[in-house]
Amino acid sequence: MRHDSRQPDQLRPIKVERRYTKATPGSILISAGDTVVLCTASLDNSVPPWKKNDEVPSGWVTAEYNMLPGSTSPRKQRRADGRSSEIQRLIGRSLRAVVDFAALGPRTITVDCDVLQADGGTRTLSITGGFLALLDTVLAIPETCELAEGEVFDPQKVFTNSVAAVSVGVVEGEPVLDLDYVEDSTAGVDMNVVMTGGGDFVEVQGTAEGLVFNRGMLDAQLELATLGIEQLTAIQRECIGGDWPL
Amino acid sequence: MRHDSRQPDQLRPIKVERRYTKATPGSILISAGDTVVLCTASLDNSVPPWKKNDEVPSGWVTAEYNMLPGSTSPRKQRRADGRSSEIQRLIGRSLRAVVDFAALGPRTITVDCDVLQADGGTRTLSITGGFLALLDTVLAIPETCELAEGEVFDPQKVFTNSVAAVSVGVVEGEPVLDLDYVEDSTAGVDMNVVMTGGGDFVEVQGTAEGLVFNRGMLDAQLELATLGIEQLTAIQRECIGGDWPL
Amino acid sequence: MRHDSRQPDQLRPIKVERRYTKATPGSILISAGDTVVLCTASLDNSVPPWKKNDEVPSGWVTAEYNMLPGSTSPRKQRRADGRSSEIQRLIGRSLRAVVDFAALGPRTITVDCDVLQADGGTRTLSITGGFLALLDTVLAIPETCELAEGEVFDPQKVFTNSVAAVSVGVVEGEPVLDLDYVEDSTAGVDMNVVMTGGGDFVEVQGTAEGLVFNRGMLDAQLELATLGIEQLTAIQRECIGGDWPL
Amino acid sequence: MRHDSRQPDQLRPIKVERRYTKATPGSILISAGDTVVLCTASLDNSVPPWKKNDEVPSGWVTAEYNMLPGSTSPRKQRRADGRSSEIQRLIGRSLRAVVDFAALGPRTITVDCDVLQADGGTRTLSITGGFLALLDTVLAIPETCELAEGEVFDPQKVFTNSVAAVSVGVVEGEPVLDLDYVEDSTAGVDMNVVMTGGGDFVEVQGTAEGLVFNRGMLDAQLELATLGIEQLTAIQRECIGGDWPL
Amino acid sequence: MRHDSRQPDQLRPIKVERRYTKATPGSILISAGDTVVLCTASLDNSVPPWKKNDEVPSGWVTAEYNMLPGSTSPRKQRRADGRSSEIQRLIGRSLRAVVDFAALGPRTITVDCDVLQADGGTRTLSITGGFLALLDTVLAIPETCELAEGEVFDPQKVFTNSVAAVSVGVVEGEPVLDLDYVEDSTAGVDMNVVMTGGGDFVEVQGTAEGLVFNRGMLDAQLELATLGIEQLTAIQRECIGGDWPL
Amino acid sequence: MRHDSRQPDQLRPIKVERRYTKATPGSILISAGDTVVLCTASLDNSVPPWKKNDEVPSGWVTAEYNMLPGSTSPRKQRRADGRSSEIQRLIGRSLRAVVDFAALGPRTITVDCDVLQADGGTRTLSITGGFLALLDTVLAIPETCELAEGEVFDPQKVFTNSVAAVSVGVVEGEPVLDLDYVEDSTAGVDMNVVMTGGGDFVEVQGTAEGLVFNRGMLDAQLELATLGIEQLTAIQRECIGGDWPL
Repeated sequence: MRHDSRQPDQLRPIKVERRYTKATPGSILISAGDTVVLCTASLDNSVPPWKKNDEVPSGWVTAEYNMLPGSTSPRKQRRADGRSSEIQRLIGRSLRAVVDFAALGPRTITVDCDVLQADGGTRTLSITGGFLALLDTVLAIPETCELAEGEVFDPQKVFTNSVAAVSVGVVEGEPVLDLDYVEDSTAGVDMNVVMTGGGDFVEVQGTAEGLVFNRGMLDAQLELATLGIEQLTAIQRECIGGDWPL
Repeated sequence: MRHDSRQPDQLRPIKVERRYTKATPGSILISAGDTVVLCTASLDNSVPPWKKNDEVPSGWVTAEYNMLPGSTSPRKQRRADGRSSEIQRLIGRSLRAVVDFAALGPRTITVDCDVLQADGGTRTLSITGGFLALLDTVLAIPETCELAEGEVFDPQKVFTNSVAAVSVGVVEGEPVLDLDYVEDSTAGVDMNVVMTGGGDFVEVQGTAEGLVFNRGMLDAQLELATLGIEQLTAIQRECIGGDWPL
Repeated sequence: MRHDSRQPDQLRPIKVERRYTKATPGSILISAGDTVVLCTASLDNSVPPWKKNDEVPSGWVTAEYNMLPGSTSPRKQRRADGRSSEIQRLIGRSLRAVVDFAALGPRTITVDCDVLQADGGTRTLSITGGFLALLDTVLAIPETCELAEGEVFDPQKVFTNSVAAVSVGVVEGEPVLDLDYVEDSTAGVDMNVVMTGGGDFVEVQGTAEGLVFNRGMLDAQLELATLGIEQLTAIQRECIGGDWPL
Repeated sequence: MRHDSRQPDQLRPIKVERRYTKATPGSILISAGDTVVLCTASLDNSVPPWKKNDEVPSGWVTAEYNMLPGSTSPRKQRRADGRSSEIQRLIGRSLRAVVDFAALGPRTITVDCDVLQADGGTRTLSITGGFLALLDTVLAIPETCELAEGEVFDPQKVFTNSVAAVSVGVVEGEPVLDLDYVEDSTAGVDMNVVMTGGGDFVEVQGTAEGLVFNRGMLDAQLELATLGIEQLTAIQRECIGGDWPL
Repeated sequence: MRHDSRQPDQLRPIKVERRYTKATPGSILISAGDTVVLCTASLDNSVPPWKKNDEVPSGWVTAEYNMLPGSTSPRKQRRADGRSSEIQRLIGRSLRAVVDFAALGPRTITVDCDVLQADGGTRTLSITGGFLALLDTVLAIPETCELAEGEVFDPQKVFTNSVAAVSVGVVEGEPVLDLDYVEDSTAGVDMNVVMTGGGDFVEVQGTAEGLVFNRGMLDAQLELATLGIEQLTAIQRECIGGDWPL
Repeated sequence: MRHDSRQPDQLRPIKVERRYTKATPGSILISAGDTVVLCTASLDNSVPPWKKNDEVPSGWVTAEYNMLPGSTSPRKQRRADGRSSEIQRLIGRSLRAVVDFAALGPRTITVDCDVLQADGGTRTLSITGGFLALLDTVLAIPETCELAEGEVFDPQKVFTNSVAAVSVGVVEGEPVLDLDYVEDSTAGVDMNVVMTGGGDFVEVQGTAEGLVFNRGMLDAQLELATLGIEQLTAIQRECIGGDWPL
């Protein structure tokens, strides 16, 4: 039994609020237990310099991750650090893995994941929520952007799949799903798994934290992660409802 | 008649949500129309270096201000700029104006004002909400801090007054209260007024933006600000209810 | 009686040396008592990126403020800080308030205010002196710049007014004009007022420093500031003599 | 058949030169094909601030990673970037996973991995070589450091295991071991695996690069990695010879 | 004949104004033709960390060099660059070469050289003026500092010699003394020479600028520099008058 | 007799390894005793912005200098400092002194000097080795670059001469050639001399370190330097063999 009475394979309660703010077409407030992340996605009608000479005009997706100072105790100072940089690179890669940049067209979407409250699993929740913010921004392109001459924009073609993420770990010798901060700080192994809605892996990042792990333990965690992603994908689909393009 | 049908002396609808997050003792989500600011206040049981040799141990209050990238359109880049620095200095000065540092004791409170959505008046709303976050953090000191030997801590003595702030300006030649972004960007004069609940001035910052202003125009704006602060003080008092120390 | 025997409404002795250095067309060494500021204005025949697509080509004015390390004791370290950033934004806004950018044409003038000796009132003296450096640079445009084809440049049209600034404050309960460092460090209220030669306000920045202030005290300070600006405008006019364009 | 005629499960030729430079007790020049990394380990007889109040004095190991500008073409600019930060965090975690900090005593060892030539696999080779530099520095402690009073230092107790790393990936649909740059840039999946000499996992980082991967593909890559680590461990052991402490 | 009618071995007119500002005990405004430098020296009653454990308490002298933005045309941006860093290291070394740090006692003097107008030779003039500011600060120690218990402070013992500097170069094939900007920008060789009042070398820095130089040309320049330093030393001595300690 | 048994006019053993790495056309590993520097030269087919409007298209040569953290003990932190900046400016100037930029054509070559082991004389060895890396890169232009239309590229015309550098100093009162770290740290005078293969001076930088020096001492050091450069030039020529263009 876990400290908050969850089963080893049970997610924390997930809540998603769509269109939380209005300044960006995609704005998702997502929480898993006490972890709360605001994901917004902004569209820019230009592309990075190294994309400018593409033969077929194609777009780009990038992500930024930040914890608000008051999201944790003791207070976190406002400044870029190695951890944030590593996390936002992970978020960016994960989102890009399901995007067809030629179908997106010559546009850049920046997904900002700002953690309002941190209780473990902020990076994986950022991916799960960030995908929804990205999706809503793509869905809004036909109404909010002027298309290029001759361009036919089809939001359905922009995504090859959906993407979500979850953490797994080994706590007191047992594999568990979706660790909160208390579990995370005592876990012997910490693993973040990013998968598509179709059940394939996008990223697997497992780290021994005080306890190296064998193949059996790795396999058990991957099973749990697969179960978690299935549920998260269902939640994502429900949040978007009839607009879900996949 | 204003573009959103308000009277010249009418505030936007103000909403305050107390204890919005749990990581800090003070956490206030405050909105004025579409402007939304999350104010959290973190306590540190130490003081800045230049306070270390005070004869009577005394504390400090500081503030930080930041706009989330997705709070505005086009997206705001994440980086310290002159405007943010200026605003957080104003917030810090305004909060410190009503604090008795000896009564606070050797503690530092950092008030973080993170703008989730920006539609004008973010700096004044940060002061109004930031005071509440600061207040809740001071109220929590007896339960959350170990007091120094012989220390008697009385939250009521920490504050000499409450503080709130509002913007006023001149739009199409007429003085108006609490400008939103649309009004702010066409205003000929932009003024931020910080006042105590007792009706005295803490800061007056008026800036000609394309239109210099005479004494009569200045006086008219100060009248409006005084009316606005009275209402904001009442809202602050209602939010805190029976805990209000003043 | 003030500590240096001045009347409450008396400025410190003001000295202005025009064309102090030769590398820039505008170069003003201005002092108020022991405060000494070197204001130079440099002209660049280009405009900021966000001005490049203006329909009517128009210019820009920007300012930088810096205290030399040896201008004060203890020595001030060389590095940008929040205070400097805030001050140079104030100087820039104040100068821009009296400039017609279309009449200036597609040119950028940077006014540098370097404090050689700091004894209070450096930011207001920077505005008063900076206006003169800016003016001299504009007057020199016909001789030093190649005009655009068809351009008719009239220095008189560049300025809608002159601008000057002065500090006022409340010292030992009494409003006084043009505080030096000794007064500034004991003042309960500190106010910087920027006005045009025509008597209108450009900026009003009043800050409680330990003492909140009521409306009567605010009014008394504004009276003193108005008197001070009149004298400073006369000094500016005398310095420029027959070249004064207004 | 791979472009350089290797079998899918074949490492590139590995060369290790021990004591390459003299300024640090650990100095390893390691190469895998055309990838060349200089790993040096420096000892500092102090610990990070957050270790200072440990009850049992214990040490720390940290790592830095850098590519020389001329190690690749086009030239890489000298500046910290997100990728370097992420890699040096991985190297540090991997080395720390096999160190007993209490046995190390109150000392900090910094392992610097400077890439002289980059042809793929620089991060994994840095771990494999970095462990050797770290090991040599620990072996030198008895001769080069003054021990604390009563301290008994036993280099054998400092390491719980050895550690090595290798990359695997999916190239043209087939899993392969130890990718060089040509393979890396066309790989659909890129995975870095860090394991102990005992065969347990320390880190698993798999990333879809254009091609999401299923469980079978993941398993096949882990098999290859295990084979590679066995060979690398043997090479490490041979390099250190009779001094090998495990 | 040179472009400004000087002889090859003739300095520009040198002017020195002692005690130009009051905030620092040493404050020298020095000019050579149109080059103007303000040198101030600030005293701090502490020493750098690496001096703290000296057996005999001893002091330190450091220098900073900066060109004001308006000192040159086009305007120089405010920011540390390689050139400034190199120059301030030269100034610091030159001043330290004539100081006995044990006689100075545990104090740090920072000499700031701020160029108000740049017309060639700013680094050498900074050394010549900086020495005077340093000297005046040392002379003021008995009145302005509290001495350590048992300390006997003798300003005469602090300096082993005076120091001054001058530039020489090869212009149109002929060696010349004290180049202004016009000469400097066409010079084939540029050499800065720092010497003591006693006639010994402290620094010799000669650089081919488009023209490599042989031994004869080097010797001719060193002759000119020696002549120039003799005159500069006499000017330094005259400026300080009866207080000259050497 | 010197501490390592060398004669006063004797260089340390010099070794040069050409084409040490493959990523850049010029790659030289050079050592003088225990000082080891890796010099690589990278070619970029563009020029700095201020070169873009040259009437005759011409190129540029720049240099960067860096000490690896493990090249010295205690470990050197990774960060740009004033010393590195000063050294890389010296290397760049020295290399440019023998290059004809019009003959180089519109290309930029960056010479990176990374110190693998530091035992004195790193900056002079960087120049001696850097010239060879630069030379090899120029020799490779015909095979590796596409020439401009009508361009005739002749590597022989790019260099007006060869360049090499050596340190001299005064140790225990006697002038000596090519100081190692032990000598350098006790030297009273430290001088770096850069000369062409033809025997002319490019740079002379002599610094009193605790001991001012007279003309005789300066002359003695310049004699030693001339002898050293002759030998270094012979070594350079031998390294390049039949490709030597001068």
